Amino acid sequence: MIKVGILGGGQLGRMLLQEAANYPIITYILENDADCPSAHLCHYFIKGDINNYEDVLAFGNLVDVLTIEIEAVSTDALETLEQKGKLIIPKVQCLKTIKNKLLQKKFYKTHEIPTADFVITQNSADLQQFLNFLPAVHKVGMGGYDGKGVQIIETEADLDKSFDAPSILEKKVDIAKEIAMIVAISQKRETVFYPPVEMIFDNYLNLLDYQICPANIEEPILWRLEAIAQKLAKAFDSPGIFAIEFMISKTGEVFVNETAPRVHNSGHHTIEASNTSQYDTLLRIMLNYPLGNTEISTPSALINLIGNQNYFEATRTEKVNQILELENTYLHDYGKKQFKTGRKMGHITLTAKNSNELLYKVKQIKQILNSSALQEI
Amino acid sequence: MIKVGILGGGQLGRMLLQEAANYPIITYILENDADCPSAHLCHYFIKGDINNYEDVLAFGNLVDVLTIEIEAVSTDALETLEQKGKLIIPKVQCLKTIKNKLLQKKFYKTHEIPTADFVITQNSADLQQFLNFLPAVHKVGMGGYDGKGVQIIETEADLDKSFDAPSILEKKVDIAKEIAMIVAISQKRETVFYPPVEMIFDNYLNLLDYQICPANIEEPILWRLEAIAQKLAKAFDSPGIFAIEFMISKTGEVFVNETAPRVHNSGHHTIEASNTSQYDTLLRIMLNYPLGNTEISTPSALINLIGNQNYFEATRTEKVNQILELENTYLHDYGKKQFKTGRKMGHITLTAKNSNELLYKVKQIKQILNSSALQEI
Repeated sequence: MIKVGILGGGQLGRMLLQEAANYPIITYILENDADCPSAHLCHYFIKGDINNYEDVLAFGNLVDVLTIEIEAVSTDALETLEQKGKLIIPKVQCLKTIKNKLLQKKFYKTHEIPTADFVITQNSADLQQFLNFLPAVHKVGMGGYDGKGVQIIETEADLDKSFDAPSILEKKVDIAKEIAMIVAISQKRETVFYPPVEMIFDNYLNLLDYQICPANIEEPILWRLEAIAQKLAKAFDSPGIFAIEFMISKTGEVFVNETAPRVHNSGHHTIEASNTSQYDTLLRIMLNYPLGNTEISTPSALINLIGNQNYFEATRTEKVNQILELENTYLHDYGKKQFKTGRKMGHITLTAKNSNELLYKVKQIKQILNSSALQEI
Repeated sequence: MIKVGILGGGQLGRMLLQEAANYPIITYILENDADCPSAHLCHYFIKGDINNYEDVLAFGNLVDVLTIEIEAVSTDALETLEQKGKLIIPKVQCLKTIKNKLLQKKFYKTHEIPTADFVITQNSADLQQFLNFLPAVHKVGMGGYDGKGVQIIETEADLDKSFDAPSILEKKVDIAKEIAMIVAISQKRETVFYPPVEMIFDNYLNLLDYQICPANIEEPILWRLEAIAQKLAKAFDSPGIFAIEFMISKTGEVFVNETAPRVHNSGHHTIEASNTSQYDTLLRIMLNYPLGNTEISTPSALINLIGNQNYFEATRTEKVNQILELENTYLHDYGKKQFKTGRKMGHITLTAKNSNELLYKVKQIKQILNSSALQEI
């Protein structure tokens, strides 16, 4: 049986392992936290640091094919493994490019992928020379994650929020919609798309409020997204799952915001709403099986469950009961032991016949979750 | 977090654990075989004999709620646990009745559930006095499983095939169709049905050839099935998942063949083809959450993968590749280490727009699998 390794043991690894049990494979997880969401769902849990060269190298030698559930891993170790012939998905060069936002942005420019104008800053002081570039978004080059590592710099007064590390300063786009699209590329470079997802952000928390699929966009925009995704997939030239995040401006321009070279939050709904989930697709890619059908079978929405914000340990059972009372709602609790504030603890997927019913149900669920929040505060 | 225990670690446990990772629970498996399909997917694997009183008692004391994935367990231990207030799903009385085919048949009679006429035989010699009852089916009272423990006695010449143990001798029904229906009963005794499945048997191997859902039956038959299932659910008076197997005679009579008080082969397709799978539903029952939507979202079929009959270790990868090349086909390989002849190694689910397309695809898949068999022989 093929040995499949995953670097990282969070919820993405967990959902990948749930699906992995459909295939004749042996699964390995490398992760420092033995209580992580994936630890009990793999054949072999290896305690170790995914950023440590030796740990990743030793882990890689145990398996036949290796993937990631987070970008922050030792790409040096992966490079050594790949040079020795180990199958790494995505390819290490592609991962290295994406992992560093500076390289990622340059890559878009080189390949003529539309992305917001930007300049590179080495430290906070650097921003002084780009005041004419404001309002802008400052994004740290390495290590940003889930809304961290991003600051909006509207005016000179915000400069103290900037990062004192290599970063990109990106022209602020007047955003009409944010869209994500999952692209799957097989080892033979067959490419399939999942229908775009529309993400509605909570601007105050700088976190996803909810997302719906299909996105409510006009057909010419859809064609534009697909054309860009196709071009980007070709440029990456790597097997894997890629989540491309787009910004659509109020004037109808489309920009690539960023890409994740892995299964992604914006694809969780594919478990219930798609014929083949993003997790199944990644496994098919790794095992060199034909890609499945990525059409959606129903409109769907997704609400993240955030620790001590809309999801609390004390009221979890009661609130889940209320949510599951609504038809076609599904819980994914990641089984994290500690409820930390702002931590992704799970998500709710809901399906409905049409977008009206969908949005109505999103409201109902948010109401249930928020009444919980009020109780706690 | 609630601690959920499962007696048995086969494929049913495996699929239940895949779904269990959506809920904030801790999972426990009791099973003698440390290489079983469920061993690596639970939080705690306890090596032990599910038929041993002490083992089951000790295991039961570890968890909050207990279920089974096979009937052959120590019901005495479960009874002790239940008397002490442990939640056992299904109720032990119900399990004891179903586990023994003699009690199960009497139960149907008592509750006026239509079932084929039968007499009880204590040993082989007993059959001599029931020659006027032939042609009949001899079914051993305890321990029958997957076609084992059942013999067709057409004439006196077949008497040497009979069981020399307490059994039932059942009038042979001239079967037009065999139907299975999954019924879910919550702790509050809410009852929901899954749409009936039609099972097409390989009479030579006495094993399921394939099954399709929805079953191709007339509406009055459907109503009759639902009425019987409703009555049976009330009679069982137990939370749980029940798979009721029906025979429909050529004259249109409906008989209950037998019931399994657990998730069942005839419900595997609900993973892909239903809004809420039988596994999800069992978890919702155990955790006292609302039952989900049991409608089907698409027609589907299911083909079991049988070790060294239609599924071989040497050609597995090649054949899976060919099958997954067809649209909307899904592999469930149970990850069993040894390919034993006749062993259930996995199943293929397929979905299609209509029953014509479904049957066409079933044929295609059987062709792929059979060409494998020919290569091997």
